[in-house]
Amino acid sequence: MADLDHLRVVLVATRNPLNIGAAARAMSNFGVRRLRVVNPYDKAFREARSAVGASGLLAKAELFENVAEAVEDCRLVIGTTAGTRRDLQHRLLRLQEGARIIKRQMNTAPVALLFGSERYGLSNEEMSHCHWLMRIPTRDEHGSMNLGQAVAVCLYELVRGRKAAGAQTAGVRNQRKPAKSREVERLTEQLLELLNTSGYVKPRAVAAEEKLRRLVRRLELKGTDAEVLLGMLRQIAWKLANK
Amino acid sequence: MADLDHLRVVLVATRNPLNIGAAARAMSNFGVRRLRVVNPYDKAFREARSAVGASGLLAKAELFENVAEAVEDCRLVIGTTAGTRRDLQHRLLRLQEGARIIKRQMNTAPVALLFGSERYGLSNEEMSHCHWLMRIPTRDEHGSMNLGQAVAVCLYELVRGRKAAGAQTAGVRNQRKPAKSREVERLTEQLLELLNTSGYVKPRAVAAEEKLRRLVRRLELKGTDAEVLLGMLRQIAWKLANK
Repeated sequence: MADLDHLRVVLVATRNPLNIGAAARAMSNFGVRRLRVVNPYDKAFREARSAVGASGLLAKAELFENVAEAVEDCRLVIGTTAGTRRDLQHRLLRLQEGARIIKRQMNTAPVALLFGSERYGLSNEEMSHCHWLMRIPTRDEHGSMNLGQAVAVCLYELVRGRKAAGAQTAGVRNQRKPAKSREVERLTEQLLELLNTSGYVKPRAVAAEEKLRRLVRRLELKGTDAEVLLGMLRQIAWKLANK
Repeated sequence: MADLDHLRVVLVATRNPLNIGAAARAMSNFGVRRLRVVNPYDKAFREARSAVGASGLLAKAELFENVAEAVEDCRLVIGTTAGTRRDLQHRLLRLQEGARIIKRQMNTAPVALLFGSERYGLSNEEMSHCHWLMRIPTRDEHGSMNLGQAVAVCLYELVRGRKAAGAQTAGVRNQRKPAKSREVERLTEQLLELLNTSGYVKPRAVAAEEKLRRLVRRLELKGTDAEVLLGMLRQIAWKLANK
């Protein structure tokens, strides 16, 4: 099950301690160990940790202040959504299709799976760190699932039918690795700076920044390409500053 | 979804009202309507029914005194188990295999899916009403799932692979056409010009140009993204020329 060690379950702004506990339990059931918690309601996190029967997994959960830091080491970042909002800016895959891609990626590199808050799901800013979004095929009339149940269903889909998984590894290993989120974010920031300097966007235009972040994620850059592009942008920025 | 109307989710001796509520919510998410409750802790059932946000599905739940009565009209009766007990007298199938049989049966006749109490699961007597047992592929070391999560995972397996019109159209709506080669080439040229101006590459360095062209192709840009990126580069080039 080495590949499951590449999966990070990231709970963002979770409100209810029972849901953090339920997510941890499902993770333990399915052999997923890395829990990351972003900006939870303080009380919720403390209560979940101290709950009777809380797993070692919960004790080892890592706490982050924002999504960018929580996914820094991941090469694929997926957001989950009930998919009811009509203004989604991302590609939206059904769990079944999405899981296929995630499983392939998990063979070689860290993957983050994000779950938003119980009430609002993931915000646009939080989603902007994702490569694409995934949705459990619930009814349109009642799409929104309980958080703990959503985590359980996603992890189930990732482990179901596991025996076939090993065969694919060899081919994938030869492909070049996708860029880490940290690299992608650095590239985004450099590009944003250039766009500010050149007057393409106004400084601190939040919507523009999110739009740019999504655009850069859609490129699904390989690590080496991200590096090369960053070098290019730096040189251009340098020239612009020293002309 | 007529066949899902043939499915009865039967909760046996459930103790925690939150779990009854969670099971009902998962049923609503996946379009399963018939909830049967056998001998629940009285208080649990009443609390679940009167909980804020309890679904109509919960209000219509049928109450039975024993399993025999609860499954009377069903042609196939399946028990769920964590599969940790060594004395099982039944055939035990993995959820994936079991769901295939259930789906076939649901086309023509009522099927009952039983979930035992949180602490003890189904008793031998309760299991004796089942044709066979089914188990979610959890880890041996921690097999027992939270009740609401187990219901969600089982129902998901029963509906997965169905054509949920909503999800797919949304996915398609978000897919955009790949950029035309003409657009990609224009972008490449603009980037090359910038790299020349800024001194990143020497003018007429053929190898560098080819490398850049390959890099830009690897991005597999969508048409709209290529357009946006070209606009950005043009603005930066303008600034560089007019500083």
